[in-house]
Amino acid sequence: MKKTELMYEGKAKRVYATDTDGICIVDYKDDATAFNGAKKGTIVGKGVVNNRMSNRIMRMLEKHDIPTHLIEELSERETAVVRVSIVPVEVIVRNIAAGSLSKRLGIEEGTKLPSVVLEYCYKNDALDDPMINDSHAIAMGLATKEDLDTISAYALKIDEILIDFFAKLGIELVDFKIEFGKKPDGTIILADEISPDTCRLWDSITHEKLDKDRFRRDMGGVEDAYQEVMRRLTGE
Amino acid sequence: MKKTELMYEGKAKRVYATDTDGICIVDYKDDATAFNGAKKGTIVGKGVVNNRMSNRIMRMLEKHDIPTHLIEELSERETAVVRVSIVPVEVIVRNIAAGSLSKRLGIEEGTKLPSVVLEYCYKNDALDDPMINDSHAIAMGLATKEDLDTISAYALKIDEILIDFFAKLGIELVDFKIEFGKKPDGTIILADEISPDTCRLWDSITHEKLDKDRFRRDMGGVEDAYQEVMRRLTGE
Repeated sequence: MKKTELMYEGKAKRVYATDTDGICIVDYKDDATAFNGAKKGTIVGKGVVNNRMSNRIMRMLEKHDIPTHLIEELSERETAVVRVSIVPVEVIVRNIAAGSLSKRLGIEEGTKLPSVVLEYCYKNDALDDPMINDSHAIAMGLATKEDLDTISAYALKIDEILIDFFAKLGIELVDFKIEFGKKPDGTIILADEISPDTCRLWDSITHEKLDKDRFRRDMGGVEDAYQEVMRRLTGE
Repeated sequence: MKKTELMYEGKAKRVYATDTDGICIVDYKDDATAFNGAKKGTIVGKGVVNNRMSNRIMRMLEKHDIPTHLIEELSERETAVVRVSIVPVEVIVRNIAAGSLSKRLGIEEGTKLPSVVLEYCYKNDALDDPMINDSHAIAMGLATKEDLDTISAYALKIDEILIDFFAKLGIELVDFKIEFGKKPDGTIILADEISPDTCRLWDSITHEKLDKDRFRRDMGGVEDAYQEVMRRLTGE
């Protein structure tokens, strides 16, 4: 399998078409951005961590009957995935109040939410990814009611699986963002990374942040945090 | 029945306790505010229009099996209503894109939405009434899942009834905001005004605005618009 044209370059990855029908290659970069691109930087080694970590987690989720785009890890930064059209709805699952939720709703960061919060945002950089609900997504033709029912059920199941998974690594899963894609036959599958770029991960005991908030908030120790998550994940 | 203490003074009305248990008196003012109080003014005669119009519409909705707080119109500005605790969730129903929806989602004002959009906002002036969804409302203890199911079903039914009702008056119902209250026995009832303050109403033919947007946007003819809606409503 060979990369052909660059299909998409995002903030943290490039996606290439390949000479094999229905398969893309994702190439993870060390580039980091925050606040919709207003803040830019580099987190050395991030691409490697995010690639390897996402793939390990996807394999684990597959065992729990969550369909994902993962085909095969090709190198430390590259992975072959199923080609899908991305549903333009970011799905955010929250177990503990943090970030934009704390600000918007006046709930102190670190407050355990009595029940899971599931948010959708319309993937649109020009509009700053505004929050939407089911009725917006349907009216705008971003997804059907059936798509959203599938997506929300998967998202909540993924949350349950990941809470347990991270707890065993001494990590609290505060929140995470995922995206889904549609295969040509209409099947919806998880098609995103799951990494310290896209999850808030706090040490279970010290509550130390082990995620991209260290970059967003200029806390230092950004690379170390990514490596620490990887170390716990691999036991290396 | 006599007013006793002032229980609540809002932007457009005062609510008084009475000497009769379980009954309040709403007193509609001519004061107008917009943008969460940043803009202030007076719309002469607005209180009378909003009181009379809300009561007529509530009576009509009651006939369609929507329970409301209306007991009896006492004067041109005062109405006796059932005392409830307000569910702190503003319910917005949208048929045509306008206002904040157009801005946030990049949909041109006046675009007919292919399906109804139902939004919730957390009633909290300090936070600027942020948009929330079911999972936020439940996690924050603002309402239960059952409350929200009842509220959304009523809101969508009210929309259907009001679209027809206003169409017969040559008015397009663009969107509206309603609030619900809980009686001591837990029953949920409509407990709000339905007026040009809380609805976007456009002339069906000319699309002229007959609502508070004339005030918000300094369009002039504010009083005339309120009176015109009242004129069509009463046939006077």
